[in-house]
Amino acid sequence: MAVGLTGLPDMVPVPGIRLGTARAGIKKPDRRDLVIIEIAAGAHSAAVFTRNAFCAAPVVVARNHLALTSPRYLLINTGNANAGTGESGLRDAQRCCEAMAQVAGCVAAEVLPFSTGVIGEPLPVQRIVAGLPAAYASLSVTGWDDAAHGIMTTDTVAKGSSRQVQINGHTVTVTGVAKGSGMIRPDMATMLAFVATDVACDTQVLQQCLNDAVEKSFNRITVDGDTSTNDACVLIATGHADAPINSVTSVAYKIFCDAVTEVCTELAQAVVRDGEGATKLITVDVQGGASDEECAQVAYAVAHSPLVKTAFFASDPNWGRILAAVGRAGVTNLDVSRIDVYLDDVCIVQNGGRAPTYSEDLGQQVMKRDEITVRILLGRGNHHTQVWTCDFSYDYVRINAEYRS
Amino acid sequence: MAVGLTGLPDMVPVPGIRLGTARAGIKKPDRRDLVIIEIAAGAHSAAVFTRNAFCAAPVVVARNHLALTSPRYLLINTGNANAGTGESGLRDAQRCCEAMAQVAGCVAAEVLPFSTGVIGEPLPVQRIVAGLPAAYASLSVTGWDDAAHGIMTTDTVAKGSSRQVQINGHTVTVTGVAKGSGMIRPDMATMLAFVATDVACDTQVLQQCLNDAVEKSFNRITVDGDTSTNDACVLIATGHADAPINSVTSVAYKIFCDAVTEVCTELAQAVVRDGEGATKLITVDVQGGASDEECAQVAYAVAHSPLVKTAFFASDPNWGRILAAVGRAGVTNLDVSRIDVYLDDVCIVQNGGRAPTYSEDLGQQVMKRDEITVRILLGRGNHHTQVWTCDFSYDYVRINAEYRS
Repeated sequence: MAVGLTGLPDMVPVPGIRLGTARAGIKKPDRRDLVIIEIAAGAHSAAVFTRNAFCAAPVVVARNHLALTSPRYLLINTGNANAGTGESGLRDAQRCCEAMAQVAGCVAAEVLPFSTGVIGEPLPVQRIVAGLPAAYASLSVTGWDDAAHGIMTTDTVAKGSSRQVQINGHTVTVTGVAKGSGMIRPDMATMLAFVATDVACDTQVLQQCLNDAVEKSFNRITVDGDTSTNDACVLIATGHADAPINSVTSVAYKIFCDAVTEVCTELAQAVVRDGEGATKLITVDVQGGASDEECAQVAYAVAHSPLVKTAFFASDPNWGRILAAVGRAGVTNLDVSRIDVYLDDVCIVQNGGRAPTYSEDLGQQVMKRDEITVRILLGRGNHHTQVWTCDFSYDYVRINAEYRS
Repeated sequence: MAVGLTGLPDMVPVPGIRLGTARAGIKKPDRRDLVIIEIAAGAHSAAVFTRNAFCAAPVVVARNHLALTSPRYLLINTGNANAGTGESGLRDAQRCCEAMAQVAGCVAAEVLPFSTGVIGEPLPVQRIVAGLPAAYASLSVTGWDDAAHGIMTTDTVAKGSSRQVQINGHTVTVTGVAKGSGMIRPDMATMLAFVATDVACDTQVLQQCLNDAVEKSFNRITVDGDTSTNDACVLIATGHADAPINSVTSVAYKIFCDAVTEVCTELAQAVVRDGEGATKLITVDVQGGASDEECAQVAYAVAHSPLVKTAFFASDPNWGRILAAVGRAGVTNLDVSRIDVYLDDVCIVQNGGRAPTYSEDLGQQVMKRDEITVRILLGRGNHHTQVWTCDFSYDYVRINAEYRS
């Protein structure tokens, strides 16, 4: 079960955005597996995509369409990733866009396709096309809950986040949904996340905001270190609120970008909380680094270590495994005698060795919690970063050994 | 159970080397946990150690002693790694060397200490010291089998390898033992491996041979990507055979180094075969790279992927996960449309997509095997490398969740 997730929060609609879903039977019958997000004319959109060299066909098509024009429709299917499908995969993604354009009365380049699911199977285009009218007919400004459910794959809970902030005396909304549970180590993107707002801003400002937000949220989570072929995150600004953001140096931008970052962080953490087999949410907080980069290096070495992750699963305060991971992170001239490590508020390592005040009892008390912060103080500078991950359980192996059967 | 390991091969004694063991009760009662390797006077020794910045106290002491003089005794204990133990750990390692020197009548710097086991607990020096006389009394040229058993921790089988080759008309022997099962991603070294030969060569030639052999063997295996704090590999040349090796460019060196590489490769593979929870030995063979480095990058991305490893555990020919791992390996300008992938002799991916000749049936037949080669052809050049790993099973999680309980 997902750690500390109790269902969707109140999802405030975003003026200018409607969402619809359908049960197209793409992989399994009677499952909500097709989602349309309709974007009002005049909106701007920004996106980040996976850096995996084997990016899926819909990623290629979405990137090309986005370079041509502003999207009016996002078309998302689960049950099939349309990845590793070569030329025919590209044609399939385009055929879906064309069908969507016909239903909605727009051009194909105004449709961005997104797919998630099994890799290497041909996309069942006919089923998707057949499902479009029903999805289109269900478009509604209150469709966020259904959309959050419609993009789930191995997710055990739907993931959403919503914020309202005041900009220039106007209330603006930022609302988003995400999916993701395995093959999670986003690199400039997440699995799939769709965030919309009613502020007015051009694509350049919007892209900068998305980059800033993603860097602190989706690019700081890992379940298993495997970057997906289909990662994508889209941020849409409809401009329906009277809140223009003209420059990235304005106060309004800061308020707006903070809200987007909060929504993205809540979504990103939700992905980890629902990580395959996860029983614990682990925050790896590295401080005192000489650069952000080396902080991330250390944080990911710890967050990816199967030995650290299985120890968390067992609630075993095995600080030796944490130290070993820090030591192999590849930081140049690391002086281990300056390193302190805390589990929540309990100091477990001081000056590179077991802290004199530490006892197994104290460690065990922290380890029993559902949400634990590992704080690593490098003593080399003023940089810091945080990474979120989950533990490694029997269920991770079960889920991934049974995935295709 | 270890994959394809049926016990120790015939371990040919190396003239000039005697081995002794004792049950010192370091962590568990009545377990052979203390090993002495005696090296005849006049021998030369070379070693490589872990590059983990948190290297253990015995690694620091062994490295210092080796810089001072030729070792006469290797002192190995299991049950406690003496790592993360700070200043007192260094003193403890030295006290063990001094006690060994007293028993054997040498100086402390002629003793190299090696420890493996739990991290962060104080070394039980008294028990080790108390066990030394019994271990010393048992020294024997035929002690290799006992020594192979004496260095085991979570290993399920003892690991040894032995070769005889002809050099200048003389039969020379290379025999070695190794231990290791988890926290395995050696970096310039393995967990613990001790290899001896009776050729005569100086330390420089010997070190070159060890570096060459380790690069192709212990530095090409991974169980979980976690480089240990205590890795060490020692190569001893006693000079008792009339087979001098004077230069690294001689034919004799080539024959000798090939034999050492074979022994190291057999030991390294044995470590993976006995990887924690392993049910399969997987060879990741990357060919057609523009450099050895990028071949290793791709090979390790595949070999470390938890999704690939769980798919192998499930005998699921999930080639999409292999492609995704190749794609995220970070190779610059990777043209995915040139990539072919084989499972043993079955082509599963051709030109970056599912091979037209491929069927799930063919893939499943290979996946059911105990030993599988994943061959990845990058189509970028003439470089290649191999990495050995194992699958990721429920038992890996069980073993590492229960390790300290």
